[in-house]
Amino acid sequence: MNKKIENTINKIIPVNTGLMEKAGDILDNLTKPRGSLGKLEDFARRIVGISGTLNPTIKRKVIFVMAGDHGVTEEKVSAYPQEVTFQMVYNFIREGAGINVLAKHIGAEVIVVDMGVASEFPSDKGIIIKKISYGTKNMAIGPAMSREEAEIAIISGIEVFEEEWFKEKIDIIGLGEMGIGNTTASSAIVACLTKSDVEIVTGTGTGLKKKQLKHKIQVIKRALEVNKPNDKDGLDVLSKVGGFEIGGLVGCILAAASHQVPIVIDGFISAASTLIALNLSPEVADYIFTSHNSVEQGHEIALKYIGKVPMFDLKMCLGEGTGAALGISFIEAGVKILTQMATFSDAKVTKKI
Amino acid sequence: MNKKIENTINKIIPVNTGLMEKAGDILDNLTKPRGSLGKLEDFARRIVGISGTLNPTIKRKVIFVMAGDHGVTEEKVSAYPQEVTFQMVYNFIREGAGINVLAKHIGAEVIVVDMGVASEFPSDKGIIIKKISYGTKNMAIGPAMSREEAEIAIISGIEVFEEEWFKEKIDIIGLGEMGIGNTTASSAIVACLTKSDVEIVTGTGTGLKKKQLKHKIQVIKRALEVNKPNDKDGLDVLSKVGGFEIGGLVGCILAAASHQVPIVIDGFISAASTLIALNLSPEVADYIFTSHNSVEQGHEIALKYIGKVPMFDLKMCLGEGTGAALGISFIEAGVKILTQMATFSDAKVTKKI
Repeated sequence: MNKKIENTINKIIPVNTGLMEKAGDILDNLTKPRGSLGKLEDFARRIVGISGTLNPTIKRKVIFVMAGDHGVTEEKVSAYPQEVTFQMVYNFIREGAGINVLAKHIGAEVIVVDMGVASEFPSDKGIIIKKISYGTKNMAIGPAMSREEAEIAIISGIEVFEEEWFKEKIDIIGLGEMGIGNTTASSAIVACLTKSDVEIVTGTGTGLKKKQLKHKIQVIKRALEVNKPNDKDGLDVLSKVGGFEIGGLVGCILAAASHQVPIVIDGFISAASTLIALNLSPEVADYIFTSHNSVEQGHEIALKYIGKVPMFDLKMCLGEGTGAALGISFIEAGVKILTQMATFSDAKVTKKI
Repeated sequence: MNKKIENTINKIIPVNTGLMEKAGDILDNLTKPRGSLGKLEDFARRIVGISGTLNPTIKRKVIFVMAGDHGVTEEKVSAYPQEVTFQMVYNFIREGAGINVLAKHIGAEVIVVDMGVASEFPSDKGIIIKKISYGTKNMAIGPAMSREEAEIAIISGIEVFEEEWFKEKIDIIGLGEMGIGNTTASSAIVACLTKSDVEIVTGTGTGLKKKQLKHKIQVIKRALEVNKPNDKDGLDVLSKVGGFEIGGLVGCILAAASHQVPIVIDGFISAASTLIALNLSPEVADYIFTSHNSVEQGHEIALKYIGKVPMFDLKMCLGEGTGAALGISFIEAGVKILTQMATFSDAKVTKKI
């Protein structure tokens, strides 16, 4: 594997379980019945373990929205034309999209990255350009990208995270994406890495009809047959049936974990990216938080394989990091419980009889 | 019924369904696949219907935390001694409790009300005093309060809401409470109004052991037998097996609905209060939002009867309005989606093929 990716993976350390236990003791002494704040307490404990401090803060929140196009759209697997990727990325830059609204709501920044959109952006204002190519190749007839391109995609994701990190410490990240056709790539990835039938991990994406869904399933099956991705080798899976924005997210995940920064999954595409990251480095698991249970079929199976239960189910399926944004707010709430609540002795409250 | 309560109920108007449809059209033109933000879109539509404007804002958020003591604690139905009510209310005033932390997290105010705590607060700073009595009477041997006291509790809740409302318009409220023994009262209310067995609507409250839970169930059964509350008459139920803080919340709910202000339920006690409010005025239903699915047994049944599905399940059971606070943040997110996102034509994004 490429040295840069290998170095990043080698820097990932196990979370501090001793400190997590101490955080549990603190939580048990706060003015509330033991464990009564449920998962908020779990979030706080886990953030302590990840960050390595008993007094963590969630100040700088960043949602990385990676965009890329997919050659497989030639096969008519999407309800929207390919140019919508470009148009929506433009919408992100102009702050008119769902993720812009929800990120602002929770006080997070949105970093938009062109990992491989099929059109050129007139300026690099408001967007980071890491364009690997003008969209992937059609995976239904051959690999989506070369192995080298897959590595560059991951390295670019690492770079994007680290450039931001070195500007100013990041406390938590959310994974967002945009790419017409990327539920098709994600279904192929999830089918391969979880050894599931294509049918049960393929959904309607952004609004396919039933007949079109059948066609999409056929296309994914063909892509898997033609390319035979090796489920022991995440890079092989990424290159054969993945996408540039998916590779970028994989890099983001690895880099964030290597800097002890928690990572919040959004929907199906970010879950597929997480599966690849876990394939490359199982240690990443402890750094991962889920957010919502997406409507997109296959998301639940991917989460199960990742070993996490979603926090909430608002019947969302937009992507962009919208679910991750809301999840970050819950995690932040948990951390504030740990660090801002009074203890029984502070508040002179009698403990249990 | 008392004139003040009757007048408040008579002011409750049906939500504006015509405007809700228009809000749906606006949502369908925003730059996202139709319906892809799921319940966030529902929240926005409902807030439009309640507030009567297509451009609602959620600026002033208020969590009313009503506190009262319960004579039934004589029967040893709680894991904490009665003085904890007073101590925790003091903790609210000093801003050290869970609700203070979470309210600050979402930008909400906490209004603390003494509806009938068994001790006297040394000053009225940071708390509104509407003390009806020093705790209710023991419902296991007779009515918790008189019918007149139940009316005063509701009127006090109406007054508390309206005093705040007339200071400055309120955009949304959350229901919070504190009162050692109030899950016992709430189980009695829910059993009566949903015609459920006491066993299935009675939980461990703030941490009873199994044997103690059995005893709690026996006490509630006795209270229902001794008092025979009339399930057709919410006031009768409130007076016989309720609590002062529960009556206060009922008043808050009625007053908020009468001023077209949405109401967010927290856990089991606020759900019991909502059942009484619905009994007095079924029109309230359209103004009610749920938040979390509490761990407390019986909450789910109460919500089903109210006809709402919870937004999320974080295994919480603290009360105080902590779940409501997080729920308010989701509703606010939905409203911002409606009012801040770009449309397809704004953003020059191609609609579906």
